[in-house]
Amino acid sequence: MTQSHMAREVAEIPEAAARFLNGSGAAVARAADAMRACDPALVVTVARGSSDHAATYLKYAFEIEAGIPVASVGPSVASIYRRPLRLRQAVCLGISQSGRSPDIVEMMRSAGEGSALTIAVTNHADSPMAAASAHCLPLAAGEERSVAATKTFVTSVLAGLALLAEWRGDAALRAALLRLPDDLAQAIALDWEPLSARLARASSAFVLGRGPGFAIANEAALKFKETCGLHAEAYSAAEVLHGPAAIVQAHFPVLALGVEDAALPQLCATAERLAAQGADVFLTGADVAGATRLPSVAGLHPMVAPLVGIAGFYAFIERLARRRGLDPDAPPHLRKVTETV
Amino acid sequence: MTQSHMAREVAEIPEAAARFLNGSGAAVARAADAMRACDPALVVTVARGSSDHAATYLKYAFEIEAGIPVASVGPSVASIYRRPLRLRQAVCLGISQSGRSPDIVEMMRSAGEGSALTIAVTNHADSPMAAASAHCLPLAAGEERSVAATKTFVTSVLAGLALLAEWRGDAALRAALLRLPDDLAQAIALDWEPLSARLARASSAFVLGRGPGFAIANEAALKFKETCGLHAEAYSAAEVLHGPAAIVQAHFPVLALGVEDAALPQLCATAERLAAQGADVFLTGADVAGATRLPSVAGLHPMVAPLVGIAGFYAFIERLARRRGLDPDAPPHLRKVTETV
Repeated sequence: MTQSHMAREVAEIPEAAARFLNGSGAAVARAADAMRACDPALVVTVARGSSDHAATYLKYAFEIEAGIPVASVGPSVASIYRRPLRLRQAVCLGISQSGRSPDIVEMMRSAGEGSALTIAVTNHADSPMAAASAHCLPLAAGEERSVAATKTFVTSVLAGLALLAEWRGDAALRAALLRLPDDLAQAIALDWEPLSARLARASSAFVLGRGPGFAIANEAALKFKETCGLHAEAYSAAEVLHGPAAIVQAHFPVLALGVEDAALPQLCATAERLAAQGADVFLTGADVAGATRLPSVAGLHPMVAPLVGIAGFYAFIERLARRRGLDPDAPPHLRKVTETV
Repeated sequence: MTQSHMAREVAEIPEAAARFLNGSGAAVARAADAMRACDPALVVTVARGSSDHAATYLKYAFEIEAGIPVASVGPSVASIYRRPLRLRQAVCLGISQSGRSPDIVEMMRSAGEGSALTIAVTNHADSPMAAASAHCLPLAAGEERSVAATKTFVTSVLAGLALLAEWRGDAALRAALLRLPDDLAQAIALDWEPLSARLARASSAFVLGRGPGFAIANEAALKFKETCGLHAEAYSAAEVLHGPAAIVQAHFPVLALGVEDAALPQLCATAERLAAQGADVFLTGADVAGATRLPSVAGLHPMVAPLVGIAGFYAFIERLARRRGLDPDAPPHLRKVTETV
């Protein structure tokens, strides 16, 4: 049996992360110097699809570690409504695998024409987005042929965290990033067979997380849709109790992506409550009454743990897609580069 | 047959809007004066559930009409991760029907202790959130007994738009708001029978919008879940093409909430593409090949049109819940005030 592109690209995640860490030092240092000079009051992110989930991850990282508010700006504000934002003392961080989506390029150009410091995170250093930005952090993840982004998602988050660590002089985060290739390799080797069995024929599910883990929940839910045709939706473990819990009936599948961080007790409380109302709850990071615990890598820096978690999820979802009789490389109705305005 | 609380509260929307417009002038003017004095570089919103969809609506309104970036801050950053944000020259807008959710009260208190100008939008002027904020815009919507928020959603958005119009001296927006009670009454009287028939037994759906219409799509998707047990998910009409379109197979129901604004052509293009791949597409605001057009109120200010649209949706969804054999006032597993940390 030939391996899917997606399986091969998931397997390449640890080496892609190592390559970024070895090769990007100068570019990260230059961008971090520019951030110190800017002393930003605000970070604005511009991204779509999986890259927007990377942006959500970095929103939590920058807010929690640096105390700087982060706004996700819909590219439509520039491309459709033609309203340039006033970005005083702001950093504008654009994330795009291809660097070619016209609305994102336009937003970076427009932000740079204001007074924002623009930083492009992309796998294509020669792309229009990189050209439209003052700085570029090239992912160097190698070609990504699967429609479902995996190694570029992990390296996009890594690039943002490396920038944060360098900008803030955060030695603990820097050390955690250096260990990342090994941690990612461990995660990819994990087996989530109980969840795979439960979801072999499921049509709906919820994925829960909190803080940076909520970004990972969004990314997992998108992958369920695009590779498995399964209508999974992501919620913060708090938000799900404000309404969405209404569709959680008996045996509704719920995946709660817990990591060892300050939010874990609240995530566990939500998992326990949903299990008590009859849901089939699967959980990482802790044991909870009524839920099935899935293996995960322990002892990680809390700002890195969700990123390691998604690598394990990617390995799982590629196998689940094939179990459901689908080709993980060829989701229906999708192309690799989506050019929206 | 007795009327549901929800049906009664939807019917009360026009008079609740009129009451807010008549009674809130002084409070809105004071908050607008404070915003002029602050000259904000950034607006931060703090909200959950339906109120967070009101915040998303106001994000687009403030970005498009005032060019000020708006960041939605997860209450967890203050309540769980204990990280005070640096909010220089920022307005912090909290939205909560009850004004009692502990994490939101804590975030307002923490923002005010920094240098942010705090403004509470709540139906309870005597609530802890109002007490923790420098300004309060009381909704005066009257008691809301249905778990599903309707009239407090509409008046929350109205309060934010009134503040925007007053702050910016925007005469066109102010005039549009004064007409709102009549427009809302027209919307509530519309009939979406073709969609109701299609969704009588559906289990999944997408709701699409763009700009402030995307906020309305989120609110509609939540109502599908909490009142109808239907797994509806909201997407921007651009974002849906980055992956989620993979689960749109033959006869997958899609509701596209179009209004007469700059984004309508792109929304129509997405609706047409999904119809061409076999989806059952229902659309407001335009005629599109392969889609069923639903009636809507025409000739509105683009920043008000999506708000009028959701009032019509509320009337529709209350009837759909009953058609699906559910009590719209009593969603399973939910309480009116959700106290999360």
